[in-house]
Amino acid sequence: MKKVTILDIAKELNVTFSTVARALNDHPAISAATKKAVRETAERMNYRQNKIASSLRSGRTNVIGVVVPSLRVTFFSSVVAGIEQVMNANGYNILLYQSNETLDQEKKGIETFLQSRVDGIIASISTETTDYGAFHEIIKRKTPLIFFDRTIEQLDMPSVTIDDYKGGFIATEHLIRQGYRRILHISADREISIFKERLRGYIDALEYYNIPVDEELIIKGNFSLEFGKSVIREARLSGLKFDAVFALEDYTAMGVLQQLLEFKVKIPDEIGVIGFANEAFGSLVTPQLSTIDQQTLAMGKEVAKLFLKLKKDEMTGEKKLEKIVLDPLLIIRASSERHK
Amino acid sequence: MKKVTILDIAKELNVTFSTVARALNDHPAISAATKKAVRETAERMNYRQNKIASSLRSGRTNVIGVVVPSLRVTFFSSVVAGIEQVMNANGYNILLYQSNETLDQEKKGIETFLQSRVDGIIASISTETTDYGAFHEIIKRKTPLIFFDRTIEQLDMPSVTIDDYKGGFIATEHLIRQGYRRILHISADREISIFKERLRGYIDALEYYNIPVDEELIIKGNFSLEFGKSVIREARLSGLKFDAVFALEDYTAMGVLQQLLEFKVKIPDEIGVIGFANEAFGSLVTPQLSTIDQQTLAMGKEVAKLFLKLKKDEMTGEKKLEKIVLDPLLIIRASSERHK
Repeated sequence: MKKVTILDIAKELNVTFSTVARALNDHPAISAATKKAVRETAERMNYRQNKIASSLRSGRTNVIGVVVPSLRVTFFSSVVAGIEQVMNANGYNILLYQSNETLDQEKKGIETFLQSRVDGIIASISTETTDYGAFHEIIKRKTPLIFFDRTIEQLDMPSVTIDDYKGGFIATEHLIRQGYRRILHISADREISIFKERLRGYIDALEYYNIPVDEELIIKGNFSLEFGKSVIREARLSGLKFDAVFALEDYTAMGVLQQLLEFKVKIPDEIGVIGFANEAFGSLVTPQLSTIDQQTLAMGKEVAKLFLKLKKDEMTGEKKLEKIVLDPLLIIRASSERHK
Repeated sequence: MKKVTILDIAKELNVTFSTVARALNDHPAISAATKKAVRETAERMNYRQNKIASSLRSGRTNVIGVVVPSLRVTFFSSVVAGIEQVMNANGYNILLYQSNETLDQEKKGIETFLQSRVDGIIASISTETTDYGAFHEIIKRKTPLIFFDRTIEQLDMPSVTIDDYKGGFIATEHLIRQGYRRILHISADREISIFKERLRGYIDALEYYNIPVDEELIIKGNFSLEFGKSVIREARLSGLKFDAVFALEDYTAMGVLQQLLEFKVKIPDEIGVIGFANEAFGSLVTPQLSTIDQQTLAMGKEVAKLFLKLKKDEMTGEKKLEKIVLDPLLIIRASSERHK
C-alpha cells in the first residue's frame, strides 16, 4: 500500500500543501474548522505523521527549552507558568530543566536541549555560572536565546528583568514612611548583580530621605532562612540597635520573622520586616510578610512574547535587540504596616 | 581534512572503542581519569561528537521525560528532586513537563517526549485524565513507563505510591490520642482514589477507637485554601459541633487554620488541625501545621531506582512488575499537639 502523504490530503480537501502541514502542526493561523477537517481526512486516509522527519525537514520542533535554577522556588515556577500560557497558546510545547544552581547541570540541560533540536532556549543562570561555554554554543548554533531575571550581560542577548534598584528603593522608602529609621539590610556576600542593585536602592532611599547610612546595618551572607535567624541572634548578642529589617529575599526575611517572634518582639510595632520576591508562603504566615512582587507571571508572558517577536523578525530579516525591564510592585502586609 | 572518529581516539589511547564511546557519554562505569584522558585527546585531535547520529545509532538518548500536574506544588517538585538525584548520578538527564492538570497538555507533553526519543517516561497523571490514549502510545512504542502517586491502575505499569489509607488512619488516630472526639474530615468531591483511601483510613480509625462515624462530619468539595475557609464559615453558621479537622491536603488545612484564627479560636486547645502532604509552608506558619509526610524525596529515588532496574531487566530479559508502596509519616506540629 502506498503511503499517504500531506499532498494526498491536500488534493482530497482541495487546499494547499501548506494549509494541511500547518493544520497538522496546530498552527494558530489555521482555523479550528480547517484543522478539524484536515485531521478527520488524515485519519480516514490513514495518514501517519512522521514528526521527526517533518522536524528535520522544516528544522522546527515547536519545542522550547527552559533552564532555571529550581522550580521549587515560587519565583521561577511562576515565571514558567507565564511562559507556558503564551507559548502553549501559540502552538509551542515547553520542556523544563533544573540546573539546581550548579554549572555542571546547567551545561547538561543546554546540551540536552540542543540535542533535542529545540526551537529556542530561555534561561535564568545558576549562581555558579561563570563559564559561559554552553551559552556560546547556543549562539553558535543560531538557536534563539533569551534570558530572564539572571542574565549574562556580556553576551548581550534579549532579556526580561525587573528593576531591582527600584525594588530596593521602594522597599526601603516604605519602611521610612512607616516611621522606621534604623533599617537593617541583609544582602548577599556573592557578586550577584540583582542583589547589588537592591542594596544600591536601599542606600539611595536612605540618602533621599536624609537618613544616615550606617555600615553596621548592612549585613552580608549566604541568604537562607537559617541565615536570617542567625543575623537576628547575633544582632541581639552584639546589642545592635535597629527598628526594621529589609531582607534581600523572602526566605531570609522569614528567618528574621521567626527569630523575632521567638524573642517575643512585637511585629510591626517594635520592628518592621519586609522581604523580596513575593514567595507563596508570605501570605500564609502570621504576621503576613510584606514583600516586593516581581510581576512573575507578566515576566513569563513578556519572555514568551519576546521569543515570538524574535521568530517573526527572523523571517522578515529585522534585527533589534530588546531588553525589557519591568517595574517591581510593593506588597504591604502586616509585618511592616504600623500606620494604616 | 579527514574527520576524526571514536576509533582514532581509541587507537591513540590504546583502549577499546567502547571505552571511548562510554567516556564521551559520561558513563558511570568509566573512571574519572579515563574520562579526562579521552576528553583531552578528543579535544587535541579536534573530534566533534555527533550526538544525534550517536543516539540514532544506539537508540539511546540518556534523557528521561517526567510529566507532572504542576511543579508549583511542593509534593511534585520534591519527588522530581529525588528522581534527579539518582538519575543524574547515573548519567541521565531529566526533562520536565507540566500538564497543569489538563488532559490536552498532558498529551502534548507525552508526544513531545516521544518525539525527542526519550529513554523513558515517568508520570503522575492530571485530575482530568480519563482518556489513556497517550499512555497507550508510550506502551506501544516500547518506551519504559513508570507512574508515581497518581497512577492508572488499568494499565498495570510499575509504580511508586504511598499508602494513603494508612495516612488517613494515622492522621485520625493522632487526633484521637490527643483527646479530640468530633473530628471533621474534608474530602474531595471527585473520584480520585488517593482521596477515597484517605477517607477510608479516617473511618476505620474512628471505628477502631469506638468513636461513632457521623456523616455530618464528612464534608466533600473542590479542595483549596478557599474551600477550607468556607467549610469553617458554614460550620459556624449551621452550628455544627466539632473539635478537630483532618483536611485531605495542606492548602485546604491552611484555609481551615486561617478562618479559625480569624474567629479567634484557640488552636490546638479548642480545635486541632491536621493536613496532608507536608507542603513547604506548613512549617513556616503560626501555629505550625501538623501533616502527613509522603516521603517525597524517597519516592523520587525509588522511582529512579525502579527505572534503572527496568533497564537492567530489559537487558537480562527478566520481567517482573514492581509496585512499590511507601509508608506515610506523621508530622506532629503545634496545630494539633494538645498534650506534649
